[in-house]
Amino acid sequence: MPFIDLNSDLGEGFGDYVCGDDEAMLRLVTSANVACGMHAGDPEIMARTFRLARERGVAVGAHPGFPDRIGFGRRRIPFSAGEIERLVAYQIGAAAALAAYAGHAVTYVKAHGALANVACEEPAVADAVARAIKAVDPALALLAIALTEQVKAGEAAGLAVHQEIYADRGYTDGGALIARGQPGALIEDAEAAASRALAMVEEGAIIARSGARLETPIRSICVHGDSPHAVAVAELVRERLEAAGVALKPFAAR
Amino acid sequence: MPFIDLNSDLGEGFGDYVCGDDEAMLRLVTSANVACGMHAGDPEIMARTFRLARERGVAVGAHPGFPDRIGFGRRRIPFSAGEIERLVAYQIGAAAALAAYAGHAVTYVKAHGALANVACEEPAVADAVARAIKAVDPALALLAIALTEQVKAGEAAGLAVHQEIYADRGYTDGGALIARGQPGALIEDAEAAASRALAMVEEGAIIARSGARLETPIRSICVHGDSPHAVAVAELVRERLEAAGVALKPFAAR
Amino acid sequence: MPFIDLNSDLGEGFGDYVCGDDEAMLRLVTSANVACGMHAGDPEIMARTFRLARERGVAVGAHPGFPDRIGFGRRRIPFSAGEIERLVAYQIGAAAALAAYAGHAVTYVKAHGALANVACEEPAVADAVARAIKAVDPALALLAIALTEQVKAGEAAGLAVHQEIYADRGYTDGGALIARGQPGALIEDAEAAASRALAMVEEGAIIARSGARLETPIRSICVHGDSPHAVAVAELVRERLEAAGVALKPFAAR
Amino acid sequence: MPFIDLNSDLGEGFGDYVCGDDEAMLRLVTSANVACGMHAGDPEIMARTFRLARERGVAVGAHPGFPDRIGFGRRRIPFSAGEIERLVAYQIGAAAALAAYAGHAVTYVKAHGALANVACEEPAVADAVARAIKAVDPALALLAIALTEQVKAGEAAGLAVHQEIYADRGYTDGGALIARGQPGALIEDAEAAASRALAMVEEGAIIARSGARLETPIRSICVHGDSPHAVAVAELVRERLEAAGVALKPFAAR
Repeated sequence: MPFIDLNSDLGEGFGDYVCGDDEAMLRLVTSANVACGMHAGDPEIMARTFRLARERGVAVGAHPGFPDRIGFGRRRIPFSAGEIERLVAYQIGAAAALAAYAGHAVTYVKAHGALANVACEEPAVADAVARAIKAVDPALALLAIALTEQVKAGEAAGLAVHQEIYADRGYTDGGALIARGQPGALIEDAEAAASRALAMVEEGAIIARSGARLETPIRSICVHGDSPHAVAVAELVRERLEAAGVALKPFAAR
Repeated sequence: MPFIDLNSDLGEGFGDYVCGDDEAMLRLVTSANVACGMHAGDPEIMARTFRLARERGVAVGAHPGFPDRIGFGRRRIPFSAGEIERLVAYQIGAAAALAAYAGHAVTYVKAHGALANVACEEPAVADAVARAIKAVDPALALLAIALTEQVKAGEAAGLAVHQEIYADRGYTDGGALIARGQPGALIEDAEAAASRALAMVEEGAIIARSGARLETPIRSICVHGDSPHAVAVAELVRERLEAAGVALKPFAAR
Repeated sequence: MPFIDLNSDLGEGFGDYVCGDDEAMLRLVTSANVACGMHAGDPEIMARTFRLARERGVAVGAHPGFPDRIGFGRRRIPFSAGEIERLVAYQIGAAAALAAYAGHAVTYVKAHGALANVACEEPAVADAVARAIKAVDPALALLAIALTEQVKAGEAAGLAVHQEIYADRGYTDGGALIARGQPGALIEDAEAAASRALAMVEEGAIIARSGARLETPIRSICVHGDSPHAVAVAELVRERLEAAGVALKPFAAR
Repeated sequence: MPFIDLNSDLGEGFGDYVCGDDEAMLRLVTSANVACGMHAGDPEIMARTFRLARERGVAVGAHPGFPDRIGFGRRRIPFSAGEIERLVAYQIGAAAALAAYAGHAVTYVKAHGALANVACEEPAVADAVARAIKAVDPALALLAIALTEQVKAGEAAGLAVHQEIYADRGYTDGGALIARGQPGALIEDAEAAASRALAMVEEGAIIARSGARLETPIRSICVHGDSPHAVAVAELVRERLEAAGVALKPFAAR
């Protein structure tokens, strides 16, 4: 009997600014990637998110990003691989401390936005992220975008690596996410997204836009937390999986 | 045979900005209070300071402060006790992670500037700091300004509490630091500062400006890292202690 | 035939973070207080808000606040009066430049949040704000909370001072706003708020919670831009004023 | 009788952090490029620098950069040309306001670090900077690195454009600055730098590393404010120019 994890980026507000409906999402996902105060989030929001996740039985991961609030961590800020290593270590430590404070425990790390994009493409950055995780706590798992440099670097570092797919993003035949702004980048129809996600889980393969299959072990599905339809998509994906008898559970519970 | 620790605030630069001569201070002190990226410091400087401290055999502590770079953590920013608790937990976690990354280990926490001042006076804030330490790692010691609310709160929380005196600051008859700007606040003569520091250690008492003695166990002497005469004062204090047969060693080595 | 201005704090987002429905509010108000990038706002949002205000014929003011994004400018950050003077001058200049860039012109200044509160109470801070305005452009008007130190300081500096009331806030018999959290601080019923606002304008007096009247020339009514009911309250206030034959127009149009 | 301007980047501290010896440099240069609070500087430092420059008869320019304190404005942060336009307008306005506050007047704009580098190479960014200046105050001059896209864009916008050379940087045969880190990028010998600067002014041409001459009208020489030898280099350059009968005066005095 297969099982799968459902993850989302949460805790992305800042001060009084709200981002997404974390309360609703934490009823749907099994893992929450919590922003660490550099691209989004702050100690108040982090502690609150960790506490609510604990109450809901949702696993939590540190979700480090570039120190770039105004760009929401989506811009490639020119940091060296070494600098990225320290930035990631800093954020993991901060998140682990606040999770402990909230009675929960960080069990994995997932890179955010542009940091994740760079780590998917550049081995030196993928290695930097993996080294940072290992240095802070080698028991932490790495949640990586499937079929990328992140996966290789995490495995080479001896980390437990789990691969994720995106429910609402299109894939190239090479298994890469189609860049935003290009045709097929986003699957806007929630039904189509949910059906395809289920198919990918059942087939154990990424389904490219062309229909091509790329086999890879899939342990988690990412549903976005900050899009207008986030809650609706997450609900439908969850419903489809459950209807198909796929159990939902975190890949790295405490 | 008595021994004492010598501590200083280090790693207080930011990006290209330099603050104090950390390289020189790390040859003199036995414990380094490392800024955690909110009032000063950044991941690069933190990692570098932890690495250098490890090479020199200097113990390291997390030195959290208010998120107030422009005020260097010296202004009382109106955070609630609860918010302070989360701010402190965040910073301890970040520091612990970067110390681990640098092959060292944070063994204590010392509050910085205005945060320390508030924690010395207000029991709720002193408790918040102590609770944050305990939540993140109850094995961490608290380095507290002698005879303050910080000491009581740390002990009540079950933390190992070590009391420090200031080499170059005057004390009231109540044992409080004379506020900056008031007569007697600063002991500018390095010889006088060093002699008084030695006398306090030997007598096991704070010596007030009036000459009054306030007995308290003294485990560390703070020498400032960012004043123009920091290195000279630290050298002289160290020299006097050694000449008097007082061994210098960290209160909380790994 | 009397006329009155309707003002609201706008442009209070930051990067991707949204705050309030500026688009809707700019259809209702006659003056927009635009955040200047320190407590809220950024150059993109400022330019966009100025441009939209110009298209709608809405007058614009610089709305400086404390550099405190995480507190949204609502906390009393300990700056000296001199530092406040420079902070305000900086923000007025930035706003004036972006208004010019957007083809509009800043015609007044209104202090935000805690900065306004301090300026209402402390003559030195009220003077600092007035001096900053005068130094940058003595033709700029000051929009001040009625019956406060701000009014006196602005007039003493020779500025055109316009007094505002709050549609949804209760007043003490002394004419001060009842502090948030105390009974009567907020008038949550939109009908009651609109009726009272109209009465104050028609009587030329602040109406305290007790029913007491405090005469003062009222030139503007503030409706909040970021509360959940902001648009509904603004609509109702506007409707009542127009039904009573009170013309709505900016106190300081270009 | 020819004359030339000597410019330097000043006001680059932040809060308590000091950068360079502005006091000494303001005795040597004729124009000060004042940081605007995004890559360096803050309202206190800006006001102080403008005031001191006024007292010394030094002309002042706004020196906008990327909002990147940790990178000191030297990293290419991915902003669009439109975003750069708003960032530059914002900073010019802030600087103009604080100069007015200090009794001085900004008469020119010079882009800082990576922003200048991008504007030298990319016409769209060079245009954005020129448009921002024009929108805020078309009477402001543009101080541009000689022979770059900045010069073309400024002239196309109808701005007064003045070209500068660098006293201590090597040039390629194409007239570009040799990138830092490559051989010949820096002229470390102060005597050699001063002699070459004088030769360039007298010949009205950039002298490339190969000895090649590239004719261009030179109105200013930039001496760095933050290098360890800044003051010594500036003194020597000034001495040589004066000995050769070249008068020193600002290109854009009030």
